Amino acid sequence: MAAAPDLEVTGTEAAPAEGRGRRGRGGGGGREARRALRARPSQVQAPYITRNVPVYEILSEEALEIIEANADTIMEEIGIEFQDDEEALALWRDAGADVRGTRVHIPRGLARKLAETAPSSFTQHARNPARSVEVGGKNTIFAPVYGPPFVSDVDGGRRYATIEDFQNFVKLTYMLPSLHHSGGTVCEPVDLPVNKRHFDMVYAHMKYSDKPFMGSVTAPERAQDTVDMAKILFGAEFVENNTVCTSLINANSPMVWDGTMLGALKTYARNNQACITTPFILAGAMSPVTVAGTLAQTLAEAMAGIAFTQLVRPGAPVIFGSFASSISMQSGAPTFGTPEPAMVLYGCAQLARRLGVPFRSGGSLCGSKSPDAQAAYESAQTLNPTVMGGVNFVLHAAGWLEGGLVASYEKLLMDADQLAMMPTLLGGVDITENGQAMDAIREVGPGKHFLGCAHTQANFETAFFRSQVADNNTYEQWAAEGSRDAYTRMGDRVKTMLAEYQAPEIDPAMDEALVEFMAKRKASFPDSNI
Amino acid sequence: MAAAPDLEVTGTEAAPAEGRGRRGRGGGGGREARRALRARPSQVQAPYITRNVPVYEILSEEALEIIEANADTIMEEIGIEFQDDEEALALWRDAGADVRGTRVHIPRGLARKLAETAPSSFTQHARNPARSVEVGGKNTIFAPVYGPPFVSDVDGGRRYATIEDFQNFVKLTYMLPSLHHSGGTVCEPVDLPVNKRHFDMVYAHMKYSDKPFMGSVTAPERAQDTVDMAKILFGAEFVENNTVCTSLINANSPMVWDGTMLGALKTYARNNQACITTPFILAGAMSPVTVAGTLAQTLAEAMAGIAFTQLVRPGAPVIFGSFASSISMQSGAPTFGTPEPAMVLYGCAQLARRLGVPFRSGGSLCGSKSPDAQAAYESAQTLNPTVMGGVNFVLHAAGWLEGGLVASYEKLLMDADQLAMMPTLLGGVDITENGQAMDAIREVGPGKHFLGCAHTQANFETAFFRSQVADNNTYEQWAAEGSRDAYTRMGDRVKTMLAEYQAPEIDPAMDEALVEFMAKRKASFPDSNI
Repeated sequence: MAAAPDLEVTGTEAAPAEGRGRRGRGGGGGREARRALRARPSQVQAPYITRNVPVYEILSEEALEIIEANADTIMEEIGIEFQDDEEALALWRDAGADVRGTRVHIPRGLARKLAETAPSSFTQHARNPARSVEVGGKNTIFAPVYGPPFVSDVDGGRRYATIEDFQNFVKLTYMLPSLHHSGGTVCEPVDLPVNKRHFDMVYAHMKYSDKPFMGSVTAPERAQDTVDMAKILFGAEFVENNTVCTSLINANSPMVWDGTMLGALKTYARNNQACITTPFILAGAMSPVTVAGTLAQTLAEAMAGIAFTQLVRPGAPVIFGSFASSISMQSGAPTFGTPEPAMVLYGCAQLARRLGVPFRSGGSLCGSKSPDAQAAYESAQTLNPTVMGGVNFVLHAAGWLEGGLVASYEKLLMDADQLAMMPTLLGGVDITENGQAMDAIREVGPGKHFLGCAHTQANFETAFFRSQVADNNTYEQWAAEGSRDAYTRMGDRVKTMLAEYQAPEIDPAMDEALVEFMAKRKASFPDSNI
Repeated sequence: MAAAPDLEVTGTEAAPAEGRGRRGRGGGGGREARRALRARPSQVQAPYITRNVPVYEILSEEALEIIEANADTIMEEIGIEFQDDEEALALWRDAGADVRGTRVHIPRGLARKLAETAPSSFTQHARNPARSVEVGGKNTIFAPVYGPPFVSDVDGGRRYATIEDFQNFVKLTYMLPSLHHSGGTVCEPVDLPVNKRHFDMVYAHMKYSDKPFMGSVTAPERAQDTVDMAKILFGAEFVENNTVCTSLINANSPMVWDGTMLGALKTYARNNQACITTPFILAGAMSPVTVAGTLAQTLAEAMAGIAFTQLVRPGAPVIFGSFASSISMQSGAPTFGTPEPAMVLYGCAQLARRLGVPFRSGGSLCGSKSPDAQAAYESAQTLNPTVMGGVNFVLHAAGWLEGGLVASYEKLLMDADQLAMMPTLLGGVDITENGQAMDAIREVGPGKHFLGCAHTQANFETAFFRSQVADNNTYEQWAAEGSRDAYTRMGDRVKTMLAEYQAPEIDPAMDEALVEFMAKRKASFPDSNI
């Protein structure tokens, strides 16, 4: 690393552009430094981020109290539907709710009271213990996009997703250190029958990654298959006593929990596995057009879901989820990266903290059809509140395109690069003596440059975030290489990464047991596309 | 607006993508609603943003005190260079500094004490009083990119800027409501002689816009020309008693104020015009590689500059400026949108508030050579701390490309669209009864949609931010229109806007006086390119 003193300052032509500035005076050692850096070992991956900096809070105490009172009013006066699930209604009746038909009127304070048994944080175990995550508190966990029926890449364009695409997204996610979690339905493998594809999805997470993952929610028996496969992977006793999957239970907003979701929720909660109870809201369609209205409704729906998990099994791990965006009032199309959902996110994070449960929201959401500037602006405008607001579990943190209809290979890498910055930002300002760097300022003094000073040399390797996406070459170099934008550059990197992918080791006997389980279960009922 | 009840929800195909969700049930009135919306009058433009939400503060009280103490140490022990300006040294000597050669050692606390006479906020008057801005406090003002020698557009590519480009950027900025300030050197008109181009630049701001503007800083006499032209525009007496321009005075970091900048600073301060004293820092080259080190150095340089303005004229308006980015430790190239500069920005904003002066930093900075996803991610990652950290004066808020070497026509519009969201975000959550929307939730109830309810109708026009850049059409529509990305779409809009531009009215006698003044001054000395 002795090359640092001579590191060239190329490209600081930018400095005079701002009126004043100077070029660094470089020596000839720049190339050597670059070579050395390329050879350095990759950094150790943290299994999740723990923040050292404050969260941003947009709502005053008064506003929070009003919204919480309104959520209570919604639950008590209007009530929440629990549909196609007699057991759910009975549980609510026993808990003291006023059940009329499928409408559950929850007395003020009851849902919050029931939520008290939900843990404020929990460990989701990965099969590689070094990748287990702690969900809640000051932690942030990034998981990839969930649910798209389409995939796209720069060469092949937009097409229906297959199980091969699914495996590819699991592999890439495994290789990206900034993604802490393998996610769930990273794309919908539409080449497989609807009622059996969950086996192949869950197996892909287990086989091609060793990060924590999500389970199937589209039917209670598919949830049970997930748990049963987890018992093969982790051991039955371990699964009985520990959380090894976190699954997405969406409300049918406004104010409806339907039988399918309730069935999956009950299966997971009974098995002590985590659920994310998530009102899925495009404000203006599924909630009022205002932020405070959307917040109260989201809190009512989420809190009813959280309370219900505790009726099923007190102490079951559960996450307060919020998916909120708005619609274009011109066309009704969903829009992303706009300020209103950012405010909903900041507010919901506060409400979840007051409720004392982990919070899921945000991601790198966008409406753009291409991984272009629109996609990036919208994604960054979602990711920033996500990170600054203190979201614990971030689904859709990478790869989301076109309102979630498309999982983009290239955007997965672009977004992951943005996520990779967050440990630094959330780590906060280093105020140690080395961080203060007074020795460097003394050594260099007025009018000189810091490139070669002892402090720079000592901190050379870790000084600044290094993007894997940004092209920081000169215009001339960039033009000589074909003036390629970030999207097309990432197309190359996708191919390189998939070619370089190496699967984590798995006990062959365990792998065989998983394959056998799936084969047996698949043979036990006919294919169906429902 | 009665069409709202039937507004179609197109594009919510995205909802099922997240596991669960429903399509809105639209009627046939969508088209009518869209027509009505297109015809609505454009919204009234606020001359700047006043925040209702808290600022984000990353540094603890302890960290702030350490950094302030270090800044004092830098000023006292190492000292700050005031070069090629005997008068400056004399002023410092008289104020009690220990001046050795050109090095000014400022006793602990002196600079902060001198800064006390600087106003905590000031009005910069525009020739259209409705566009005057209040700089400081809870206000944020957006100004376009400053300084690029190149411009680019999607048809013509990258080329040297001309005075016609300059005028175009002034015109577009005038037309963009989210830009509150006309800026200064929006691009460098290299087709004009260096020593005379300031006349044409200042005149362009005066003639083609009625927003506030910045003056020339490249020589004291050019600063004086700016003031003299302002006296023609505003009247001499008005300029003597009011601030009508804000100009950019960059330090030659580390720890040097040079004669040129000091000359311009003195001219403006003496005329009671505002200066932005800005350390221009690419951390790792012009400052230590650490955030806390860069903060202490920035504070020392800025505070010395601010104090100096008060030595020249106590009470002169002055802004604490910080331009900070980092460099690639591989290549030395400047990098943008990375987490370390974001932390410097958050920290500097806190330091400026404690000093009690307005703060300038941030913008929509990027290193990308194209207005692509890289550009947008980097810009958003700069703009977010800018806005959440509480920057008062935001130079480079729109149009900056390629490390500031290029003013991009298309990116000006893209960035301006991002800026247009900020009044909503900084406005905070509406917690009035209308904001709470309990009547809407009661009216709609579980399982229905909010598109047609009375509350939605009442709030239809202002409900959500409407992007001028985002394409929210379906994939099929977008593909049918040529699958154009945001960059190419904006190319069209640039042409439309320039074709539609209408100059603000100016008194012909005043215009004539300005032209006459310039002609006389230009004829009084030979052209030069220095």
